[in-house]
Amino acid sequence: MFRASKSSNHRPGRTALMAAATGLIAGASILAPLGAYAATDDHGGAARNNGDKTSAIRESIVDGPAKNVILLIGDGMGDSEITVARNYAEGAAGEFAGIDALPLTGQYTTYALNKDGTPNYASESASTASGWSTGTKTSNGALSVDISGKPQSTLLELAKANGLRTGNVSTAEIQDATPGAQIAHISARGCYGPVKTTANCASESLEKGGLGSISEQLLNLRPDVVLGGGSATFTEKAVAGDWAGKTLFEQATARGYQLVDSAAGLDTVTAADQSAPVLGLFTKGNFPTRWVGPAATVGGGNLAPVSCTENPARLNTGLSLASLTDKAIDLLSADSDQGFFLQVEGASIDKQDHAADACGQIGETVDLDEAVQSALAFAKADGNTLVVVTADHAHTSQIVGSTPPGLSVALTTEEGSTMLVSYGTANAGESQQHTGSQVRIAGYGPGAANVLGLTDQTDLFFTSSNALALNTDLRSLSAAATLTLDQPTVAPGAAFTGTGAGLNADWRVAGKISTSGSADPLGTVDVIDGQALITGTAPTTPGQYTVTATGAQTGVSVSAQLTVAAAGTTPTPTATPTPTTTPAAVLPGGSTNGGVGGVAAAVGAVLAATGTQVAPLMGAAALLLAAGGALVWFRRRRHGLTES
Amino acid sequence: MFRASKSSNHRPGRTALMAAATGLIAGASILAPLGAYAATDDHGGAARNNGDKTSAIRESIVDGPAKNVILLIGDGMGDSEITVARNYAEGAAGEFAGIDALPLTGQYTTYALNKDGTPNYASESASTASGWSTGTKTSNGALSVDISGKPQSTLLELAKANGLRTGNVSTAEIQDATPGAQIAHISARGCYGPVKTTANCASESLEKGGLGSISEQLLNLRPDVVLGGGSATFTEKAVAGDWAGKTLFEQATARGYQLVDSAAGLDTVTAADQSAPVLGLFTKGNFPTRWVGPAATVGGGNLAPVSCTENPARLNTGLSLASLTDKAIDLLSADSDQGFFLQVEGASIDKQDHAADACGQIGETVDLDEAVQSALAFAKADGNTLVVVTADHAHTSQIVGSTPPGLSVALTTEEGSTMLVSYGTANAGESQQHTGSQVRIAGYGPGAANVLGLTDQTDLFFTSSNALALNTDLRSLSAAATLTLDQPTVAPGAAFTGTGAGLNADWRVAGKISTSGSADPLGTVDVIDGQALITGTAPTTPGQYTVTATGAQTGVSVSAQLTVAAAGTTPTPTATPTPTTTPAAVLPGGSTNGGVGGVAAAVGAVLAATGTQVAPLMGAAALLLAAGGALVWFRRRRHGLTES
Repeated sequence: MFRASKSSNHRPGRTALMAAATGLIAGASILAPLGAYAATDDHGGAARNNGDKTSAIRESIVDGPAKNVILLIGDGMGDSEITVARNYAEGAAGEFAGIDALPLTGQYTTYALNKDGTPNYASESASTASGWSTGTKTSNGALSVDISGKPQSTLLELAKANGLRTGNVSTAEIQDATPGAQIAHISARGCYGPVKTTANCASESLEKGGLGSISEQLLNLRPDVVLGGGSATFTEKAVAGDWAGKTLFEQATARGYQLVDSAAGLDTVTAADQSAPVLGLFTKGNFPTRWVGPAATVGGGNLAPVSCTENPARLNTGLSLASLTDKAIDLLSADSDQGFFLQVEGASIDKQDHAADACGQIGETVDLDEAVQSALAFAKADGNTLVVVTADHAHTSQIVGSTPPGLSVALTTEEGSTMLVSYGTANAGESQQHTGSQVRIAGYGPGAANVLGLTDQTDLFFTSSNALALNTDLRSLSAAATLTLDQPTVAPGAAFTGTGAGLNADWRVAGKISTSGSADPLGTVDVIDGQALITGTAPTTPGQYTVTATGAQTGVSVSAQLTVAAAGTTPTPTATPTPTTTPAAVLPGGSTNGGVGGVAAAVGAVLAATGTQVAPLMGAAALLLAAGGALVWFRRRRHGLTES
Repeated sequence: MFRASKSSNHRPGRTALMAAATGLIAGASILAPLGAYAATDDHGGAARNNGDKTSAIRESIVDGPAKNVILLIGDGMGDSEITVARNYAEGAAGEFAGIDALPLTGQYTTYALNKDGTPNYASESASTASGWSTGTKTSNGALSVDISGKPQSTLLELAKANGLRTGNVSTAEIQDATPGAQIAHISARGCYGPVKTTANCASESLEKGGLGSISEQLLNLRPDVVLGGGSATFTEKAVAGDWAGKTLFEQATARGYQLVDSAAGLDTVTAADQSAPVLGLFTKGNFPTRWVGPAATVGGGNLAPVSCTENPARLNTGLSLASLTDKAIDLLSADSDQGFFLQVEGASIDKQDHAADACGQIGETVDLDEAVQSALAFAKADGNTLVVVTADHAHTSQIVGSTPPGLSVALTTEEGSTMLVSYGTANAGESQQHTGSQVRIAGYGPGAANVLGLTDQTDLFFTSSNALALNTDLRSLSAAATLTLDQPTVAPGAAFTGTGAGLNADWRVAGKISTSGSADPLGTVDVIDGQALITGTAPTTPGQYTVTATGAQTGVSVSAQLTVAAAGTTPTPTATPTPTTTPAAVLPGGSTNGGVGGVAAAVGAVLAATGTQVAPLMGAAALLLAAGGALVWFRRRRHGLTES
């Protein structure tokens, strides 16, 4: 087994990387790592600035909006973890060509809240990811709901609702806290699929009218590109909803997803959009780490120093975080008119820090760095992309000078010196703890100046949403929706079709047909690029009927008049489609409900991030929504997918 | 004993402080801590930015030069220590009105070097303070010498040599590593005074021709304002040099220092300059801490949480770090034509972290924060001052969620929640270790943009020296020196006086009188505002003689012709003074030698930070310098101080 190094991934060598990084701010020579080439014991030999960089920094401050935002999260990547990895992989005087190259930098706080609103100084990945995903602090373990359990709109949701393309990449299970916070709203981060949700998040399960498991919420949301681990959960079967009894993989296929599970498979994907999103799940659980080495032990710092080695179980480099980031960017940027929001997580810095495995965490940091390089290379070429690199929370590992009483390990760094790493927040065999320190946040591109100084994790939501000029009032994004019937007049018992359009902030739409004193549900369908196809069978009694489509997320209702005329009678011409929003038909506080069948849960959910007070839902629509069920078949207009 | 809080120092309340901080960047509302007033569980309630701050940040980026630089150092104040203190004293959503208010932020690396030039990933305060003081990395324990032991010019020295006023303030013994690195060059930080220097730094002692102890080097350097602890050392007696057998206090008095040891005494000081520098030493050792509380213990996190309390032994608030900073700024800024360089250290964040005393370290962080507020208030009003706040190295304390196996303590924060602080790098009773993480650096004012991104500690030297537009070529700063004799012709055996001027980069000057084939030393004198008074008794043999003054730091020599004429003869009129620098009379590599009597040590020392190659000293000046001793008395022209 050979010594692991950055170059083992056949990526550019250090000099080239540094040169690339150098170009990120105006005045290409400014960030040249002079110190990395001079003898560090010379006067000025360790300095990183190459002369005064005031002008270059000034030029790096670019007003928003940005067309695209890429957030790269090093899970557990506190300043100590960055330094541990840099020392090992680049040398103390070196610098990461990605992580260290962003010109604008600051610190942010990562605390969580307890359920009573008091601060919890030691947060974890769910509360923290919820913080930047939604702009709302929450309690540990909760995903994108506030401390009272109300769903809060996420950046990914809002980006999609605003017409941007969206991506979510992680080396973890895609349901894990960091990617999960962008795609789901649930009280317990562990409720990956139907099984755990039924057991541990019962009131949020589909069978209880809730939004469903994290995986099921993901399928509703339809990000354009989702790449990571966590396929095991997709072999579970839905307990309720339109796909009850079918596995989540079967459901995904039925709903038009492109499923891939290998680098070769991913290579064959040439496009990803709302009609055919890419769901790449490459491992049952989390990705194996890139590097391995001995876990820290009591007295480990006194042992002969070791080097990290490649993990023989590592996925092929076509599935490195950088390659997945490259692929996601390629797919998301294919339509040059459409911006995108992409989150990328290097997940196992945290997981290996928990395990007191220095080589594990270092290799994952190197892996993230390469993904950052990919993002920066795109952003530099594109010129209109905000890139932010930060962590969700700090972690345990510390660089020390002598062997500490807890766990430790001695590593021989790339430059041949010995670095002692201490893990002192848990005993051997237990999980080392997150720590509550503020962490680094760094940015490049339009709007990046908002990371300077002291901010909070929740500021990153606003930094990102402001950079993308997102309308965060979900309801308003569907407010101009319309419903058009293919045939305004049909025979009794004949099939009819209505097309909802402009339902931009809804992932699912419930249909109904009603007349004075009665109403029948028409099932719930996916929204593709703002469009929803409502189909049904006309009543057998001739007369005037109203077909209504109601967005599950916004509560916006649109309707059209359907005339049922017996054969031989003269149909009354129907007016042009009547796009109407129903003022009263709004969920209390709005809704981010993305439940497949559990639309009843929409009542009580919120249109978060809008600040808009909305009226309670009192109309018939709510009753119908609550009724759930599917009385009709529907089909995908574009792709001819049929499901009964 | 009452609960300690920030307001116990009768400083402005939080709202006022925040408002003050807010004004630090353009657009007064931009940094308003919105989140601190909203409910943190609301959407956006925890955000710290108040809208997009791109323009405000852009406007905060100001080109140098700056007139003044104030560096404030939190010893051991890593990001974790900042967060621990903020959580406790301001709340998790709060912010320090000083530390957190600087708009421009980054991270810097703090590693040291081993003697062989390889990196040492766990540094301490001497190597780190040397880094920013000189721009040269060195080994742990060494003060402003490179790894081979060569003295490196410091910011304080260079500021003085460039005609700026200088100050050095600390809550530690003034000889301690952080203040010591600005004022001394020595291999071992512990060599505070003659006793330890003779024992542990023998080759650097005055009696061995070295630069002498840290305290003796301080007395040579004459910063305008020095305020801190460490008076005990000044009761030691010099072993060699012009003040052998006298205490350092006696020496200081003899050399014109204004000595104070109390707040009342400091109040009486109304001016401080080169002719009468202020040396305020208020404690024998380090200052007592501001707050006290229980030290962390094994299992301490499981005990009932406690609050910090005021330390009954605390110095009065007239001797807080903020009040000393205010006083130093008042004294240094009194002459509006002269800029200044001031370093301020909050020393005991580190010391209390070593002691696993959370309340101790928090109170010291609060104390530093108030000093930062003082500096920022001045800088804001002045408009031409660079303020930088950073740490020398990170430290042990970590915020955790459950009681760790090592030492821990549970604190009840100002907002009533419990914060667990872990100390896991040493056993109980041992000193907790420094840690090697990169740390925060933050700036405000002209040139502050150089702190952004990733820099090294040594960059801070260049950020500061560039902001002040310092000429770092010490030799060139004395190169235009002149020597003028009061009477160019004197009788045999008569007293004569020569005034050296423009010796800007020399703290001490050695005189000699020579004629063909012979030379006699005229002793070594202090330089006051570039001037040195050389006095002597004329030879009894009539003839032409050359009086020479040679700077101990730069090796620059200036000379004038002295005619000794017997009574009744007609003296040959002497030409105008002949300012000459002696091309050959340069120390190998230059010199920062500030030794009182040990000028021989100048040979082999360096004019660091110049990059200039200088020729070896081969002339008679070197021999005379090496001779040392004082054959003549001298006096202070301005103040009539006499010493035999």
